[in-house]
Amino acid sequence: MSKKLTGSCIFGQSGGPTAVINASAYGVIKAALESPNITRVLGAANGIVGVLNDRLYDMGEEDPYELSLLLHTPSSELGSCRYKMKDPDVDDTDYKRILEIFKKYDVRYFFYNGGNDSMDTCDKINRYMEKVGYECRVMGVPKTIDNDLYNTDHCPGFASAAKYIATSCMEVSKDARVYDSGMITVVEIMGRHAGWLAASAAVATYCGSGPDLIYLPEVDFNMETFLNDVKSVYRRNGKVLVAVSEGIHYADGTFVSEAKTSATDGFGHAQLGGLAAMLAEIIKNETGAKVRGIELSLLQRCGAHLASQTDIDEAYLAGKTAFDCAVAGETGKMVAFKREMIDGEYHCKMELIPLTSVANYEKKVPLEWINEDKNFVTLEFIDYVLPLLQGEPDLPREHSMPRYARLKKVFADGRIVD
Amino acid sequence: MSKKLTGSCIFGQSGGPTAVINASAYGVIKAALESPNITRVLGAANGIVGVLNDRLYDMGEEDPYELSLLLHTPSSELGSCRYKMKDPDVDDTDYKRILEIFKKYDVRYFFYNGGNDSMDTCDKINRYMEKVGYECRVMGVPKTIDNDLYNTDHCPGFASAAKYIATSCMEVSKDARVYDSGMITVVEIMGRHAGWLAASAAVATYCGSGPDLIYLPEVDFNMETFLNDVKSVYRRNGKVLVAVSEGIHYADGTFVSEAKTSATDGFGHAQLGGLAAMLAEIIKNETGAKVRGIELSLLQRCGAHLASQTDIDEAYLAGKTAFDCAVAGETGKMVAFKREMIDGEYHCKMELIPLTSVANYEKKVPLEWINEDKNFVTLEFIDYVLPLLQGEPDLPREHSMPRYARLKKVFADGRIVD
Repeated sequence: MSKKLTGSCIFGQSGGPTAVINASAYGVIKAALESPNITRVLGAANGIVGVLNDRLYDMGEEDPYELSLLLHTPSSELGSCRYKMKDPDVDDTDYKRILEIFKKYDVRYFFYNGGNDSMDTCDKINRYMEKVGYECRVMGVPKTIDNDLYNTDHCPGFASAAKYIATSCMEVSKDARVYDSGMITVVEIMGRHAGWLAASAAVATYCGSGPDLIYLPEVDFNMETFLNDVKSVYRRNGKVLVAVSEGIHYADGTFVSEAKTSATDGFGHAQLGGLAAMLAEIIKNETGAKVRGIELSLLQRCGAHLASQTDIDEAYLAGKTAFDCAVAGETGKMVAFKREMIDGEYHCKMELIPLTSVANYEKKVPLEWINEDKNFVTLEFIDYVLPLLQGEPDLPREHSMPRYARLKKVFADGRIVD
Repeated sequence: MSKKLTGSCIFGQSGGPTAVINASAYGVIKAALESPNITRVLGAANGIVGVLNDRLYDMGEEDPYELSLLLHTPSSELGSCRYKMKDPDVDDTDYKRILEIFKKYDVRYFFYNGGNDSMDTCDKINRYMEKVGYECRVMGVPKTIDNDLYNTDHCPGFASAAKYIATSCMEVSKDARVYDSGMITVVEIMGRHAGWLAASAAVATYCGSGPDLIYLPEVDFNMETFLNDVKSVYRRNGKVLVAVSEGIHYADGTFVSEAKTSATDGFGHAQLGGLAAMLAEIIKNETGAKVRGIELSLLQRCGAHLASQTDIDEAYLAGKTAFDCAVAGETGKMVAFKREMIDGEYHCKMELIPLTSVANYEKKVPLEWINEDKNFVTLEFIDYVLPLLQGEPDLPREHSMPRYARLKKVFADGRIVD
């Protein structure tokens, strides 16, 4: 298993960006650039699409300082994609093309950084390469703000988004309670099928000022119960802050926000949004109160200035571990996080799990972490999430504004302009 | 003018909250608590409404450490209001009541922290007290994220909102350019009649990644020109980030976002919102591109975690200066900021201007700071705004979350519960 394998490596980013996905990129790229086993470090432009189109950046051309800024640069610096690979047994066109590119650049290591769908892509590529007998070690690096990957305590990217959400809810909570008149505010938070992010708004309440009510997609939504909850808090306090997951749905599975379900992303997922505005309208009609809907939108997943240092460290380590383990002989695995509480203190251990065990499953918030009234989370959730949010990064700045990595992005095949 | 005047003081907060309005509160309250001229420091609950209703907190009851946390606590900690005072020559009911309260607590100093309308309130109270011969020194402390107060270089609260907007636009810009497919993003920024905040999005572009196009209410909006601008950038780059002020309007004065102009706030201003979603829909129909609308909403005015230290310092100093000058004999004035560039370095000098010179005027972005195509700002605007954003506060934290002031809010008249 530790047979020495020398050649190029490709690193690619896939799916929705996060505040720390580039920290994982740096973990892989830095280790690869320093490794005697790697002849050339390639970055795929827009993930697997860049491999298919032979759009590969030579990471060896980059300035080391600029690369180090990836630790604090949000979004997927190499570009991302939402490209669904076909089953190779049905149509192996893409796989043949990937093999061609792998051979062209003597690629022996492939690292893919993404969520559920990306681990599926990773798994398919790994199995194909094994089938055709091309020696290449394929490793998955987890990433998703949704925190819904299976067999890992949590996912890089989640904690920073959670910290953004909790901090923003804390600030909005202060703002939305300022007037002497009544006010109801609805904050819409990302999360299609898992409520980890919306649940994280509870940290604001735990820390002094946050939502009164939280609704997750783990529980069927009932509009009447919801309106009664809101009215009850409104009668009591005159102010209500509600956090809802974009993915809340009725018992029959239809999303509460139906408005935009016609548009879909590349994987056939419904594109949600506009839920906060919709609920605000319904509450206003029902209560006559002043109601405001706020959608945290893209801000919550790219808020690098509010990143958790724990998340940055773990994301970096996930990338580095994937690389080190691949060089040591591993393939077909994803790096996972195992939580260890030692003397009440949080520690995170890296471990490897088979790609097949993670692809296409979704991990949800345990029902026992949701309160009896199904409108908030329990202290067990706070205990789970709080250690992940700890630590503030020392953000590199220029003019008091974030200073992001500025990469040259030189194409590996010598192209100057794309 | 320096005649010694001893008695109580009242401090009140009015209008929309900001990230640093409590820093001004701390400037007044701390100086007042330390002053031998002040017998009792009172904080009005919900501004002038708290005075009218005899809801006054005894600030002397507060823990000094908790008070110091006001420097980093967003929103108006004492509560705010939007209450329009009548002309005392038409109806002096409110003024008589204020006089009654002033006499009850022997109030000899009144500090009011707010924007245009609040300075008008301040001015009216000052003139009434002079008319009836009740000795009370009345001072205005400026506050508005809109930066539209007259006769001052800028206003406390603006810079922190601008920094939040610029940083968020920088992050969104990274996120919105991540996929290999086309994408157009519209960010809606506060500002009814003045475009200072929307213009500040240009700082993101100046610092490496930000909007391609910016539209301000200082210029009449033309939908056809706007769509042509967007299409032109889209053809060139495949990605477009547009920043629009909520107050953009057609040549006839009607707001582009007409949807919500029926609801109005207490002053008869139209309640805007939903513009980003509306423009996104129009652009989508016109271009067929994927378009996303983002409304920064309340987040931009309460983002204390992204405050400018310069803004915090100046807001604090504005409060302290108002207090010190009142004790020295001034009345009927507002603290204003004068910019002084010494050896190319920014300095801010406090000065006093008559309340009458500021109330009810609106300062707009100079037309010469808007580019020829009316879709961006010039470097002169960057030169103006950049010094104001400098410096990061050392935010007090608990569990890596902001630790806000927790005040007791003990009523001055001995009430335990309200």
